[in-house]
Amino acid sequence: MQKVLAKDLFTKEFKDGEEITIEGWIRTIRGSKKIGFIEVNDGSFLKNVQVVFSNDLEDFDDIKKFPISTTIEVIGELALTPGAQQPFEIHATSVKELGASDSDYPLQKKAHTYEYLRTIAHLRPRTNTFYSIFRIRSLAAFAVHEYLQHNGFNYIHTPIITSSDAEGAGEMFQVTTLDLNNVPKNEEGAVDYNEDFFKKETNLTVSGQLEVEAFALALRNVYTFGPTFRAENSHTGRHASEFWMIEPEMAFADMQDEINVSEELLKYVVQYVFDNAKEEIQFLNDNIDEHLIERLSNTVSEKFAEVTYTEAIDLLEKADVDFDVPVSWGLDLESEHERYLSEKVFKKPVFLTNYPKDIKAFYMRANDDGKTVAAADLLVPEIGELIGGSQREERLDLLEQKIKDLKLNEDEYKWYLELRKYGGTVHSGFGIGFERLVMYLTGMKNIRDVIAYPRTPGNAEF
Amino acid sequence: MQKVLAKDLFTKEFKDGEEITIEGWIRTIRGSKKIGFIEVNDGSFLKNVQVVFSNDLEDFDDIKKFPISTTIEVIGELALTPGAQQPFEIHATSVKELGASDSDYPLQKKAHTYEYLRTIAHLRPRTNTFYSIFRIRSLAAFAVHEYLQHNGFNYIHTPIITSSDAEGAGEMFQVTTLDLNNVPKNEEGAVDYNEDFFKKETNLTVSGQLEVEAFALALRNVYTFGPTFRAENSHTGRHASEFWMIEPEMAFADMQDEINVSEELLKYVVQYVFDNAKEEIQFLNDNIDEHLIERLSNTVSEKFAEVTYTEAIDLLEKADVDFDVPVSWGLDLESEHERYLSEKVFKKPVFLTNYPKDIKAFYMRANDDGKTVAAADLLVPEIGELIGGSQREERLDLLEQKIKDLKLNEDEYKWYLELRKYGGTVHSGFGIGFERLVMYLTGMKNIRDVIAYPRTPGNAEF
Repeated sequence: MQKVLAKDLFTKEFKDGEEITIEGWIRTIRGSKKIGFIEVNDGSFLKNVQVVFSNDLEDFDDIKKFPISTTIEVIGELALTPGAQQPFEIHATSVKELGASDSDYPLQKKAHTYEYLRTIAHLRPRTNTFYSIFRIRSLAAFAVHEYLQHNGFNYIHTPIITSSDAEGAGEMFQVTTLDLNNVPKNEEGAVDYNEDFFKKETNLTVSGQLEVEAFALALRNVYTFGPTFRAENSHTGRHASEFWMIEPEMAFADMQDEINVSEELLKYVVQYVFDNAKEEIQFLNDNIDEHLIERLSNTVSEKFAEVTYTEAIDLLEKADVDFDVPVSWGLDLESEHERYLSEKVFKKPVFLTNYPKDIKAFYMRANDDGKTVAAADLLVPEIGELIGGSQREERLDLLEQKIKDLKLNEDEYKWYLELRKYGGTVHSGFGIGFERLVMYLTGMKNIRDVIAYPRTPGNAEF
Repeated sequence: MQKVLAKDLFTKEFKDGEEITIEGWIRTIRGSKKIGFIEVNDGSFLKNVQVVFSNDLEDFDDIKKFPISTTIEVIGELALTPGAQQPFEIHATSVKELGASDSDYPLQKKAHTYEYLRTIAHLRPRTNTFYSIFRIRSLAAFAVHEYLQHNGFNYIHTPIITSSDAEGAGEMFQVTTLDLNNVPKNEEGAVDYNEDFFKKETNLTVSGQLEVEAFALALRNVYTFGPTFRAENSHTGRHASEFWMIEPEMAFADMQDEINVSEELLKYVVQYVFDNAKEEIQFLNDNIDEHLIERLSNTVSEKFAEVTYTEAIDLLEKADVDFDVPVSWGLDLESEHERYLSEKVFKKPVFLTNYPKDIKAFYMRANDDGKTVAAADLLVPEIGELIGGSQREERLDLLEQKIKDLKLNEDEYKWYLELRKYGGTVHSGFGIGFERLVMYLTGMKNIRDVIAYPRTPGNAEF
């Protein structure tokens, strides 16, 4: 009598009549006077195993009353049922309760709203939808690592707590051990950070890019993949306060190299998920987004488009669409513009290159035209911007001037400038918002539904 | 003329006389009147490529003056030198400066202290030692993912910002957007957290275990691998304020299953690093810890030992050693005891099982003896505790009682208890301090030297 996993039952060869044991949770149960049916999920596979039990079992009537989500052990005979909806079922010779479930279990058969399910984030992975999402999220994360590692990239864990404000990109969370009921003050009456844990003001990182650049200038190809934070009071379905970012960085690589690697990486991840989460992708296509498979197949098979920002503005100005935000050169594109370009014009992912310098970060490499920088963002259908990349300014004098012009704190960037002072190198990198990638892979429209325990303004439960 | 990587030059087949181009940084340079030698590192490989250039080159005298760390492009002819110390060298036909380096570059040939190198964390990966450490760190991280993913584990990103204090295990960092110069107070005169970003007090996580358990009860085998934080004013070489933890969790698995998986995982990681970082391991064995290869080989080849805590106390009491902290049953073992057991008694990694309940966390499963819990820690030479695991208490009534007895906040654990209320399951898991693992893999003795930008009390630079 062997213990088996549902995953193996569905994907490997078993003999008709084999005696097997399976442990899992009751997803549905129904019974008549003589016979009962249980759908058991054991967590190893999206699909449930169908168990048939009859009144030959002594405790037939007790079994019938097991509430949903009871943990059970089923011993029985495997019956192959070729041609039927289920490829097999188990004819139970024993159904034993391993863990009781209360009858007020909130995930009864009826469908629940995503809003409600967020309030039971500890239980929602037991639904098919969230099971599929979190399986895909896991596979996508691994595919990112696998692609990068197999292509010579080194994973660098850049710091989460930081005393720099990176690009001054967004509002930051402060990290402190000071007693907020009694904040120590210095002689000038300001907060006395000498009393704080790190003896200075510290924040949660908004990006590991600057820190990982130092490693690109030593290990050549590197990446970060970790949590980042924005304390923005934003209540859209696209923004979370805590999210994960993938940030590869390559020495001796220009913008075109960076574009090529990011396209290859994205295709690799999509293909990996296709290969390893067939059932989950099919489920989401059937239940969440009927164009999911089409869109992802297209992502793998089509060469991504590439146009300059200036050409894109042209296309948007000519578009017969009434955008909420009017288009002109210099505009920081909104989601509506990005989606129009990828969904309507190119009908596939498209790189926009050479953005106006004024809407991009200080570290991006100045182009010779004096107006643009060597930035490349990837816009994809349904999401808009998925990847933001650029060649970095490797010329010490230009970078110093930029830091001065933008009145950034020069002291804080001293070490960053030293990366140019001691053997600077043409180098480039990009960032992928991992949750946006998971939204793209699952068809989910709200970022809160692709994060295990989402953090947004006013929400930090569990 | 093909661009090549040092890694390929050292590991693939090239023809004698092939014309190649290599880009990299000058590590050493010396020259006489007629001939010069440059060791170039291009980041793709630990070892440098030897370049020979002669006064046939027009700019011979300029090249000789290139400071250390200048970025150069070398074009030349590959000359295989079988039998020589270097398997090949490049006879340069051109050496071009791609990025200048200032002559005050701090990493000149002389050796530096680890303390000093920590102050230039942005440059230290350019040394052989730190290059090796961060390569191994990256490979180890990937090996962890690969083992777990290929064994059916799903990667869950548990939250970094949390409103729970997990096991009450350690001092926590507070996360806030309140203005510390002017903290808003409520009517009672206490901090008004309604004004804070999450409308409650929030902290940085000390462990993702409780949150990931919820996913084990849905996806069966899961793990977290992310940063965790302790605001402890600890100045040892074993403690950092920010470090990464690997926390696998398995449903339908008891303590013995958990022990087996953690042993297999550790062996997998060591073997993966052996296979993929031969040069780095050899370098560290030659320069940092002469017993490194021996210890790691032993880890892979030997079955780990396993004794109960009670047996271990017996062994320690009988030991002819004058421990700083005297031994008796109930003691929370110190590093000196742990190392004695693994280094002197067993001479290999050893699992200690069934610890006294009073020194272990509330969620560990009570044994029938009423005194111990089903905990299993792995002790390894040089490090002490590397892995801490346990079977979790799945019995609702016992867990509720424990939470009451320890006066934990029952409201806060309501969701955690619901994991038992709705189909609880025998389940187990373990945690690996990733930095300790990297120390074990590299022979480094200070945790600050295996972290890209270490955070410790008073230190949050970069």
